Amino acid sequence: MTSSSAFTIRRARRDDVDAIVAMLADDPLGSARERLETPLPPCYFAAFEAIDRDPNIQLMVADDGAGAVIGCLQLCVLPGLSSQGSPRALIEDVRVAAHCRSRGVGEQLVRRALAEARGKGCRLVELLTHHTRVDAQRFYERLGFARSHVGMTMRF
Amino acid sequence: MTSSSAFTIRRARRDDVDAIVAMLADDPLGSARERLETPLPPCYFAAFEAIDRDPNIQLMVADDGAGAVIGCLQLCVLPGLSSQGSPRALIEDVRVAAHCRSRGVGEQLVRRALAEARGKGCRLVELLTHHTRVDAQRFYERLGFARSHVGMTMRF
Repeated sequence: MTSSSAFTIRRARRDDVDAIVAMLADDPLGSARERLETPLPPCYFAAFEAIDRDPNIQLMVADDGAGAVIGCLQLCVLPGLSSQGSPRALIEDVRVAAHCRSRGVGEQLVRRALAEARGKGCRLVELLTHHTRVDAQRFYERLGFARSHVGMTMRF
Repeated sequence: MTSSSAFTIRRARRDDVDAIVAMLADDPLGSARERLETPLPPCYFAAFEAIDRDPNIQLMVADDGAGAVIGCLQLCVLPGLSSQGSPRALIEDVRVAAHCRSRGVGEQLVRRALAEARGKGCRLVELLTHHTRVDAQRFYERLGFARSHVGMTMRF
């Protein structure tokens, strides 16, 4: 399985939550923040329900066709006044399962998100990547993103 | 009028849209993107309606108490799976009217947004500032934000 035809991008379902959280936790930055327990704590399913009923948000997954989720991405399309009142897109939580890297999974997820954003009239797509994720920054530059901003965060 | 008691922070109303767009346009980056016409193009009012009915979004203004809007900020509180399913806040379109700078208007807007985000259970607040806005970056660092991420954007 080397081509992008080996997987499909689809909307996440409730029974994908375990696989998505496993990807979020399989990461030096994410591992300390998640609770990868069996069964998964109810907070994750409550968050999934909130995402699923929110018309602004699409949680997408890459499905390998054999029932396994091998990538994810969350797209938010947000109304705003700037840029003549055009909506703005925010991409978050892009992850690809460790054993499925370099197969174009992340690229297909991001390209799908860009197409959705464009289709919804967005003129701007934004994302933040941690300053240590140099490979991710190169990946996004290759897809046409510019390193135009400083991403600032506060954790409570 | 030097103290923060000289203005109040409140939710934006439809009749604030002209003043908000004027602030968005009064900026080297924003001036090319906006259409500051009289009357304002309908696209801005359509965007305001979308913001106003969206439960995720609060468009806040600083009101000088005499009917003038002297600052604005848009807060989005977005559900997500990461960080144990806690919502995430995004701050956008922070502006202070040119003649009202250095009076704490921006600081009060951001502090109100942070309090709202905290009250809604967010553990993370994010924002992007253009890399040329060095003063803005210092301002956010003073309020407790870290320059932790690279902010990447694509414009269509």
